[in-house]
Amino acid sequence: MNTKRTAVVGATGAVGRAMISILEERAFPVSELRLLASSRSAGTNVDTQWGKVEVEDLATADPAGIEIALFSAGGDRSRQFGPAFAAAGAVVIDNSSAFRMQPEVPLVVVGVNDAAAARHEGIIANPNCTTMDLMMAVAPLHRAAGLRSMIATSYQSVSGSGQKGMDELARQVRKLGADLPALVNGGWQDPGGEVYPRPIAWNVIPFAGSLQSEGYTDEEWKFVNESRKILDIPSLEVEPTCVRVPVMVGHGIAASLWFDRPLSAEEAEALLGAADGVAVWKEKVPTPLDSAGIDDVLVGRIRGTVGTPGGINLWAVGDNLRKGAALNAVQIAELLV
Amino acid sequence: MNTKRTAVVGATGAVGRAMISILEERAFPVSELRLLASSRSAGTNVDTQWGKVEVEDLATADPAGIEIALFSAGGDRSRQFGPAFAAAGAVVIDNSSAFRMQPEVPLVVVGVNDAAAARHEGIIANPNCTTMDLMMAVAPLHRAAGLRSMIATSYQSVSGSGQKGMDELARQVRKLGADLPALVNGGWQDPGGEVYPRPIAWNVIPFAGSLQSEGYTDEEWKFVNESRKILDIPSLEVEPTCVRVPVMVGHGIAASLWFDRPLSAEEAEALLGAADGVAVWKEKVPTPLDSAGIDDVLVGRIRGTVGTPGGINLWAVGDNLRKGAALNAVQIAELLV
Repeated sequence: MNTKRTAVVGATGAVGRAMISILEERAFPVSELRLLASSRSAGTNVDTQWGKVEVEDLATADPAGIEIALFSAGGDRSRQFGPAFAAAGAVVIDNSSAFRMQPEVPLVVVGVNDAAAARHEGIIANPNCTTMDLMMAVAPLHRAAGLRSMIATSYQSVSGSGQKGMDELARQVRKLGADLPALVNGGWQDPGGEVYPRPIAWNVIPFAGSLQSEGYTDEEWKFVNESRKILDIPSLEVEPTCVRVPVMVGHGIAASLWFDRPLSAEEAEALLGAADGVAVWKEKVPTPLDSAGIDDVLVGRIRGTVGTPGGINLWAVGDNLRKGAALNAVQIAELLV
Repeated sequence: MNTKRTAVVGATGAVGRAMISILEERAFPVSELRLLASSRSAGTNVDTQWGKVEVEDLATADPAGIEIALFSAGGDRSRQFGPAFAAAGAVVIDNSSAFRMQPEVPLVVVGVNDAAAARHEGIIANPNCTTMDLMMAVAPLHRAAGLRSMIATSYQSVSGSGQKGMDELARQVRKLGADLPALVNGGWQDPGGEVYPRPIAWNVIPFAGSLQSEGYTDEEWKFVNESRKILDIPSLEVEPTCVRVPVMVGHGIAASLWFDRPLSAEEAEALLGAADGVAVWKEKVPTPLDSAGIDDVLVGRIRGTVGTPGGINLWAVGDNLRKGAALNAVQIAELLV
């Protein structure tokens, strides 16, 4: 098999660590593994299937020789270093939002629009985690009936904000405790936080990301714009609402979907049951905890609409660190081998 | 003022206790307070503004003389005892779902359809908590523009299942702990539970209530049927999704709304800003923790739709034990004084 000199950029973050694990699990044909991160993490050693690897400082590392570079180091670093890596000969698979909407950059959900990857010019973008998980549930229905409009309402876990999101939730839960009188009657003490605008412990925050335009956040615009690009439906109508929930891993989405023709719950279930990378759960409802650590996007609660007829209401949940990020990036790399 | 011999049935539950507090806070003109509950709680004493009151056994108590009976003891007890209380002369204000859809029973959200209360025949129903909180945010917009269709997706706290829901969440959080490796990679141990079909700690469960018809739960049908009755729009199109979240108190709802005419975010904000019982939050996003212990329903994230034009996306959150249950019941009683 054609082996590849492979790099993980942002190797010490939550997604970077998942990328290394998934390269190992899937026996990706790595000929040499390089790990890069900020100067803060440089010099540390990581044990991998390909030996102990010392983390290099991204700012000073030479990208020469790298064939595939999996980037998950934030949009600024992708913008700063991604093009140089591509110019040095690597195919950059970038998990940030930096390049996703650039027309010449393919935005690929493996299993949905694999063919787009071939048209890359050195950079391929990995979609937003929430959008990606939803696309896995929506694409099989779209292929059969032509998606027209979508209301997407999310339940996003704190690992979507990286390790610091998980640390903030754990710390706040410890600090507030299960202090029922205060939680029930008000009077709780603000536990403080740096990642989210409001406490996330024992709470949900109907605001994920940062405010962009028309009152919507960047996370919400990703639902709109990335769905249109991935499914190649420029006129797709999307109403997005992104909400953070006190869950460590697993992004859930409640979606209402209407198509060019009526779709029954039975047909939707059959289509999703036959789709790769999707598991339909009927006996148990699939929850974020169930999705943590697995590759499939879980779909449940498939119902015909009861308001505006002919559509489908459903629930999808996926591991945002795996299919929502690292797994899809590695799957894109597999398309290139 | 016309004082009333008042009873709270289900006085030791989460909502019953809130009813007693709210009668006190609002200085409801109680001439005599009677507290009733199951035989398990009978004989215990409760300190109230009207003296120490011994809890009576509902099964054997004589309803004679009671003028207003606030019921929150579950649907079965409402069906069993409500009509007898009404026959004995009380006006029964019932928090269960037992009588809500009966045509002769008014279903009243105070501030929305107060006039309906006057048409009672001995029983007035208090709406479902999630629906009630949403109606407070929707009714002012409906009055101005005529509501046509609504996608309602909930984030329901565990106190909607009563004290036992709160106990289950607290116990499961303690049992699972903030065990990051297990929560992130799977491998968590099922903490066991009696109230919910799946663990609720560090999780969300896209299934609230029990399965009814067409794949929807009773909680979801309440969104449909109670909204239609309260707003008096028999043809209202509703897509309901009810999800339980690991929050003690406060039910949130993300809603997409379309009307007989286009409504702008500015107009919606002005209408809601002028409505009693509603507070529009702009600087901070309103969360369940913010709603706990207060009377107003908080509304935020008011946005013009970006998919199907002319509608409104918004977020509403209210204390499900107060406006969502006990407060509204007491407000109905106030209409009767």
